[in-house]
Amino acid sequence: MKKPSIVVLGAGYGGMIATVNLQKSLGINEANITLVNKHDYHYQATWLHENAAGTLHHDRTRIEIKEVINMNKVNFVKDTVVSIKPDEKKVKLKNGEIYYDYLVIALGFEAATFGIPGLDEHAFTIGSINSARLIREHIEYNFAMYNNEKDPNDARLTIVVGGGGFTGIEFLGELANRIPELCKEFDIDKNKVRIINVEGAHTVLPGFDPDLVEYAMNSLEARGIEFKTGALLKECKPDGIVIEKDGKLEEIPTKTTVWAAGVRANSIIEASGFETNRGKIEVRNDMRAPDYDDVFVVGDCALIMNEESGRPFPPTAQIAIQMAEAVSHNVKAMATGSGEVESFEPKILGTVASLGHDDAIGVVLNDRKLFGFKATVMKKVIDNRYLLKLGGPGLLFKKGKFNIFY
Amino acid sequence: MKKPSIVVLGAGYGGMIATVNLQKSLGINEANITLVNKHDYHYQATWLHENAAGTLHHDRTRIEIKEVINMNKVNFVKDTVVSIKPDEKKVKLKNGEIYYDYLVIALGFEAATFGIPGLDEHAFTIGSINSARLIREHIEYNFAMYNNEKDPNDARLTIVVGGGGFTGIEFLGELANRIPELCKEFDIDKNKVRIINVEGAHTVLPGFDPDLVEYAMNSLEARGIEFKTGALLKECKPDGIVIEKDGKLEEIPTKTTVWAAGVRANSIIEASGFETNRGKIEVRNDMRAPDYDDVFVVGDCALIMNEESGRPFPPTAQIAIQMAEAVSHNVKAMATGSGEVESFEPKILGTVASLGHDDAIGVVLNDRKLFGFKATVMKKVIDNRYLLKLGGPGLLFKKGKFNIFY
Repeated sequence: MKKPSIVVLGAGYGGMIATVNLQKSLGINEANITLVNKHDYHYQATWLHENAAGTLHHDRTRIEIKEVINMNKVNFVKDTVVSIKPDEKKVKLKNGEIYYDYLVIALGFEAATFGIPGLDEHAFTIGSINSARLIREHIEYNFAMYNNEKDPNDARLTIVVGGGGFTGIEFLGELANRIPELCKEFDIDKNKVRIINVEGAHTVLPGFDPDLVEYAMNSLEARGIEFKTGALLKECKPDGIVIEKDGKLEEIPTKTTVWAAGVRANSIIEASGFETNRGKIEVRNDMRAPDYDDVFVVGDCALIMNEESGRPFPPTAQIAIQMAEAVSHNVKAMATGSGEVESFEPKILGTVASLGHDDAIGVVLNDRKLFGFKATVMKKVIDNRYLLKLGGPGLLFKKGKFNIFY
Repeated sequence: MKKPSIVVLGAGYGGMIATVNLQKSLGINEANITLVNKHDYHYQATWLHENAAGTLHHDRTRIEIKEVINMNKVNFVKDTVVSIKPDEKKVKLKNGEIYYDYLVIALGFEAATFGIPGLDEHAFTIGSINSARLIREHIEYNFAMYNNEKDPNDARLTIVVGGGGFTGIEFLGELANRIPELCKEFDIDKNKVRIINVEGAHTVLPGFDPDLVEYAMNSLEARGIEFKTGALLKECKPDGIVIEKDGKLEEIPTKTTVWAAGVRANSIIEASGFETNRGKIEVRNDMRAPDYDDVFVVGDCALIMNEESGRPFPPTAQIAIQMAEAVSHNVKAMATGSGEVESFEPKILGTVASLGHDDAIGVVLNDRKLFGFKATVMKKVIDNRYLLKLGGPGLLFKKGKFNIFY
């Protein structure tokens, strides 16, 4: 009998945990497992804002796939997914195509710019190792240029962060810590630097506990961040942005706009003809796509409604990892004909947002609030747990964050 | 009786050695010494190519002036010289003016671009801490951008160095060592990177011993440098350069052109109305300007003919330092009325060009040729001798280059 082919698309949180679990639970004679990813490395997307700010080197964030996947058990294909043809049970890649019996779609997110003029062309987004280190270099380049011009242009020292959600706030925290170093490196007067957050809602971190929001804003403002809430970004140009607040337009000169105000599922989902809800596949209880019994979806491409709130669960690493655990169980059950498929139930264990290396806020089990030092420790515990799950103690010691006092 | 005012303009090799020597040899009651410089730091201009390539941090190259000058004995003015008015015995600064009884002009060099179209706007020059670290950042930015574009632009990975003289060759040596690191940092295929030297003469390092030139070219070519000798740079554009070789025009796409093919004396000299020869002041034997008994000139603004060769001595750190020693003796003699002014005789002790941290060529006393390891050691000995002279053992240990095996 022919062994079933399991194909996992994408090596983010969901794709990696699914592949590692399938590799562990299936014998070589039970199935062929293939992982497709455009890079030969995995990265922790929740650390990219640190790479972008320059407070953590990107090699700390990325992990070579061969370090955690056994290449003798899993067929790794370094290629880019172009489209999925679920009716033909195949995936079109840039350099070929691949057939599957069971497919796990784990293609992650991309930035959503909502048609705001100039954002696609002139704003940066924190979405990959490539885009994160470009932001770091772009900021450094502008700081380096400043003292080389006859009329130094203060727009080179102004950084606008669009969006006061999780990524935006965490990036601001890192920037606040990075700016004094950059000023020393490039002989810049700290008082010339402006870091501005633009958020459309009337508060940053909408949905978070107001005490935590206040704590976060105080922490960041004390380090020089300016907040413009209730302000819409109307246009992004190479030398500045236009915002609208209280019905008035304002132009802010800046060479650096980082857009962190929206993500959407990978656009391959819609382009491949799946039925979508907000660009995502609204999966069944067992994480399968509605019309295809052999297609599973994990992470940011999957939509699950939270019946309590009536809104979808947020696209977090935590949920992607839990989805991948359920999916790997269900794929095994179907591929080997052993056991039953399970229903997936997300368990939100807590949410922690860092505010730089030395400050954080969070909510953990039973809505307990955490501030400052305790929250920074919790953040590291969460990150380290993931590494342990992904690659065991070896990976944890190599890439973990241990210095809780820094 | 009023104490004479001695003013030194510029804190390069010549200005620093002159000031340190005057500070040591003159009592506080004998003269007022003032040093004017636009930065509060001195830098070793002969190390800037390493900062530009990114192989040495610029803080290793610069020295805070207050570290070597006793601010209780010397009045340090952080300001930019606008012009010198020798008939009024005064110097116009950006933020004021200053009178002198004895003036030491040590204003150094600036890039000469010979009217080649686009060079001033689009090429980089290695002339200061600011311009050197900008080159480093510019190269890094282009490497970082490469993998972020839909159609990666190979011009981002091409670096053109205009000029195969001392600075150009030393910069190429550092770049050759730096490129593998940059490729690793930004996930770039080394084979995509091009480093091209464009030199108008039919050989690089014109005037150097042919054996040494051949050694240098072999060393650099083995590390991937391409040489285009007998080629004139005709135009520099934001995305490329045009060269002419054997009567044919060729366009080379590049985002990075570093112009290292010409220096001239600081243009303040000509603008201040001094009689000049090739933009420099042809000084008398005692290093004074022809028409002004109270104006001394050291370093790249001073021209001394080498009667043996019939050509001017080259503008090197070695000669600037020797000039400064003679000038500080002569200024002291005149300011205190003690002793005689001396004639200055340059003593060329040797010339060493580095080819990266691990290779070099040189000629030392009696025309003995040095290659490779011995030459790298000699280079470090020369650099360390200067630091000892400038700031004693404390400075030597702090900023010296000791690791001869690296």
